[in-house]
Amino acid sequence: MFPSHVTLVEVGPRDGLQNEKQPVAAVHKIELVHRLQAAGVREIEATSFVSPKWVPQMADNTEVMAGIVRQGGVRYSVLVPNMKGLEAALPTKPDEVVVFGAASEAFSQRNINCSIAESIERFAPVVAAAHEAGLKVRGAISCALGCPYQGEVSADEVERVVKLMKQIGVDHCGVADTIGVGTPRKVQLAMERALKHYPLVEVSGHFHDTYGQALSNIYACLEMGVHTFDASVAGLGGCPYAKGATGNVATEDVLFMLNGLGISTGIDLEALVDAGAYISGVLDRPPVSRVGRALLAKREKASA
Amino acid sequence: MFPSHVTLVEVGPRDGLQNEKQPVAAVHKIELVHRLQAAGVREIEATSFVSPKWVPQMADNTEVMAGIVRQGGVRYSVLVPNMKGLEAALPTKPDEVVVFGAASEAFSQRNINCSIAESIERFAPVVAAAHEAGLKVRGAISCALGCPYQGEVSADEVERVVKLMKQIGVDHCGVADTIGVGTPRKVQLAMERALKHYPLVEVSGHFHDTYGQALSNIYACLEMGVHTFDASVAGLGGCPYAKGATGNVATEDVLFMLNGLGISTGIDLEALVDAGAYISGVLDRPPVSRVGRALLAKREKASA
Repeated sequence: MFPSHVTLVEVGPRDGLQNEKQPVAAVHKIELVHRLQAAGVREIEATSFVSPKWVPQMADNTEVMAGIVRQGGVRYSVLVPNMKGLEAALPTKPDEVVVFGAASEAFSQRNINCSIAESIERFAPVVAAAHEAGLKVRGAISCALGCPYQGEVSADEVERVVKLMKQIGVDHCGVADTIGVGTPRKVQLAMERALKHYPLVEVSGHFHDTYGQALSNIYACLEMGVHTFDASVAGLGGCPYAKGATGNVATEDVLFMLNGLGISTGIDLEALVDAGAYISGVLDRPPVSRVGRALLAKREKASA
Repeated sequence: MFPSHVTLVEVGPRDGLQNEKQPVAAVHKIELVHRLQAAGVREIEATSFVSPKWVPQMADNTEVMAGIVRQGGVRYSVLVPNMKGLEAALPTKPDEVVVFGAASEAFSQRNINCSIAESIERFAPVVAAAHEAGLKVRGAISCALGCPYQGEVSADEVERVVKLMKQIGVDHCGVADTIGVGTPRKVQLAMERALKHYPLVEVSGHFHDTYGQALSNIYACLEMGVHTFDASVAGLGGCPYAKGATGNVATEDVLFMLNGLGISTGIDLEALVDAGAYISGVLDRPPVSRVGRALLAKREKASA
């Protein structure tokens, strides 16, 4: 059942940086994307078209998209929260757009002030317009393994959103453990529900490493044949030293495991570590990635 | 194949602290053991009887063993490098002793200046004497997944040491990924070799999280039915911020996964996090455990 190839969707430039407190200049975001694609990354979530009032870090979305020197074979996606976001995104020519919904009713109410069903319904015209423009639409189901407000989230609740996304024509279904509380068997149960409605090739996992569980969760997904995962270079998207850390799984750590399993990705680990070191240097803190830290320490030792 | 119960062998007081640069007073080590057993830990590697010239941190071994108020049902083990160590250990009344050998010839030569075969042979009278004293002997095979000097270590090399340990009467076989480079399939291949010569109940895994792989490796072992693992509270035994970090997997992180999988351990997570916070306070740095950090941050937020 193990896949021979895995696609890693790099979400560092968007999900990774969006909550970063210190402003990161567009030039650095663009350079990060360049380094990622040079390392062999073929899917990059580059930015989002969300109101700068809510996510000031992504206010430079158009500048970032314009500054990226596109590389053949690489797909660039952007997150859009609504039609206004899509309209702003379209002129920047992304390959895909990402829409989202929570599996937890409590989270949906608290976060976007409407029910899950309403939130997905509002995306229906966005999906239609994206398709009209020739774009693929990825759907992200947040809080699929747990919610900061309601606690446990059942597989039934996950499947409900999967079906709603399918109904409005979303092409791809990403199951996201936003708060990192998932463990392997629970993740498999959630994934099974996505796979009831989407083919293997259009299901992906998005795991946070807040509780250190992300790699075992990915391993459990690999055993089901799932072969697309989001990951964030240097573990961007939540510093474990800070309170309320969210902690996207680090791309380097996932790649190390995949390399060990003999699963190809097309990504060069050393070049990826370089990309992580680059953005960590911009942020002036060490990468959260354990592989990044270990390999950088090894290099330093070798050159000493 | 999944076990319903897992035994976690807490190695923080010994393997975790042995390379700690700042001296830790015996009273703190004793208190750590008390907190661990109060949390429900039932196997504790308490100290080692190695020359204080080599491991100054463990020079207080007799004091530590004498200071621990033993709890019924808890087994206390100590590491011994030779007959002299065993003789020093016996009066302190451990339940088990731990002997060791490397799977890598290069490591054995560099580390203890003799071949693997010689190193195991030297343990034969130690094992016999330990048995005579009524103690169980655990064997630890270091560098079973990789070696800092020779790089790759094959399953054949692992099996060779397993057989040598079996020949001298070692009761239990622990497969240790000393440098943390193992990934799930390779770990399973190494474990298979241990299981050719030892029953499931006498095989354990010892994983380092230097590259973030420990939990997925443990998960892969669980799938084989292996149900005993070493772990180190707060991730003692290698700080990822430091060069040459070794990074024992944190007991809290393993327990979080096992709890999620519905596998019992008898250990209370919150009490374990307390024990990790205690020793982290002594060392004046945050726990390396991701679960420890996340739960402590949650508590702080709740009380704010």
